[in-house]
Amino acid sequence: MKKFINDPDDVVREALAGMAAAHPELRVDLDEQIIVRADAPRPGKVGLVSGGGSGHEPLHGGFVGLGMLDAACPGEIFTSPVPDQILAATRAVDGGAGVLHIVKNYTGDVMNFEMAAEDAETPIESVLVDDDVAVDGSTWTAGRRGTGATLLVEKIAGALAEQGAALAEVAAVARDVNERSASFAIALTAGTTPAAGKPGFDLPEDEIEVGVGIHGEPGRAREQLRPARDLAARIVEPILTAKPLAPGSEVIMLVNGLGGTPLLELYLMFKEVSRLLADAGVQVARSLVGNYVTSLDMAGISLTVCRADERLLRLWDAPVRTPGLRWGA
Amino acid sequence: MKKFINDPDDVVREALAGMAAAHPELRVDLDEQIIVRADAPRPGKVGLVSGGGSGHEPLHGGFVGLGMLDAACPGEIFTSPVPDQILAATRAVDGGAGVLHIVKNYTGDVMNFEMAAEDAETPIESVLVDDDVAVDGSTWTAGRRGTGATLLVEKIAGALAEQGAALAEVAAVARDVNERSASFAIALTAGTTPAAGKPGFDLPEDEIEVGVGIHGEPGRAREQLRPARDLAARIVEPILTAKPLAPGSEVIMLVNGLGGTPLLELYLMFKEVSRLLADAGVQVARSLVGNYVTSLDMAGISLTVCRADERLLRLWDAPVRTPGLRWGA
Repeated sequence: MKKFINDPDDVVREALAGMAAAHPELRVDLDEQIIVRADAPRPGKVGLVSGGGSGHEPLHGGFVGLGMLDAACPGEIFTSPVPDQILAATRAVDGGAGVLHIVKNYTGDVMNFEMAAEDAETPIESVLVDDDVAVDGSTWTAGRRGTGATLLVEKIAGALAEQGAALAEVAAVARDVNERSASFAIALTAGTTPAAGKPGFDLPEDEIEVGVGIHGEPGRAREQLRPARDLAARIVEPILTAKPLAPGSEVIMLVNGLGGTPLLELYLMFKEVSRLLADAGVQVARSLVGNYVTSLDMAGISLTVCRADERLLRLWDAPVRTPGLRWGA
Repeated sequence: MKKFINDPDDVVREALAGMAAAHPELRVDLDEQIIVRADAPRPGKVGLVSGGGSGHEPLHGGFVGLGMLDAACPGEIFTSPVPDQILAATRAVDGGAGVLHIVKNYTGDVMNFEMAAEDAETPIESVLVDDDVAVDGSTWTAGRRGTGATLLVEKIAGALAEQGAALAEVAAVARDVNERSASFAIALTAGTTPAAGKPGFDLPEDEIEVGVGIHGEPGRAREQLRPARDLAARIVEPILTAKPLAPGSEVIMLVNGLGGTPLLELYLMFKEVSRLLADAGVQVARSLVGNYVTSLDMAGISLTVCRADERLLRLWDAPVRTPGLRWGA
């Protein structure tokens, strides 16, 4: 294993110290292991908290700031945050208007966020993100997994909360975004956790994992490597099957690298995927290309497509200022 | 080789088509192979053109936009852009106030930018970026190589040009930033070009390439892999030796991934590097962490440190709106 680390047990804590040094505009609490907006809690504003295992950076800590999350609680690598962490984050952002928990659908995350919600002193709404249409259950979850759409949920719900909307409204738009979203991923290689020291799975030189999860958990099938245009079709097809889009639909699209894929390849795939969507009469109204929801150093790509409307596009366009996503501010 | 590509010969052209689809706010000319700001040429504004081999994304195409480059000309992978490309970019951004060429110090880039400058119909100033203090010459260059400081030069000179400064002034600040900057890189693995189909060099499981270039060209030494804190010292030492910083100095710092390094490790290294600079009495006034000047899928890291002053910090903070760098707009 070749990594820029000291002790494998200290990676998350030390990276968090790096975040604190790199982003003085955020409050990083190294004892509670939470990342909080500097101006939290803001009186009267709904607080947004998300979190999950580390290894998916910039998700979630990189999305804390104006117009997105109020706090993030990173667990150990590929490990759910503990209830105390989530509770500390919830308290830190409670401005009296309640707190929204954005929870990716993994068994441990769901359980620990529920425990924290029970102990919270403020009204909590919880939104489950389960956009990955590859499998209906895996070793990590019951039901669909939460992946790329989490970024969209955090961005759009964050924008609405910034405008002063009430907890129920913010939760509703978050659920709406999740409902409208579908994701699918392909891996060329597995990621390596510092603790394991070797790739999460072995993949021969000519094979790919289709429908892979962001912890390297298996997908639908192991298939032959083939040209990008064929891989793009392999990704788009299950998305359009799971959540059909009428011709003329507008979408927000995320072409996401899983950590080890060069931007050059992501752009090439963007071209292939855009073409397929255009063939289906779907218009890409907004898009992002880059490594946003990652799986350590996994070479792979995921596509997230969210059916948009005018309101969602306005919220998407609203100012955001976080380490990982920034515009208009 | 596992990559999201079709034909290895078409990667750059197809990725450029992806950039065109992803960034309708830019003008991507697929025939000339140039990326241009939508509002270029702007009358009376100095035009900024940079370019170089592809494989270093988001550099340079991802830095085209308000407050940074007016155009970029990407060559084939690790191959200089041709003079005709550079000339087309120069013409596209010539608003009558002259054009600045920002050239990384590689033999082919220098030669081809010179040829384009000779044929240009507008005054040209050329600024050579040679910040890599690892080696004084390599297989790719005579003198120091141009690496991470290119981002700083493009950002700061771009901000000054946006304010309406004259060509000589913009060139002067670009040269000043280069003079004040030093970079040094370590690779854990080599990148794989689509044409070669295998890593650029072999590195045993317990060895690293110290002082590596962004094409995988060798550095100072091949050494043993060791903990992040020791690698940070190995990077900081030559930088402070080459361009000493008095205690109390303020710097702009770029902790840059070479493509295959997870953000978690970059943040961890940020902590280590910040600590070493603090020990030397150096204050990090501004910083960036992420994959900005890459070498395809190379696992590695580079550090760039630029001695700042009030003026440079103001220009750094000025609004920028590009695919790869954005704030204040």
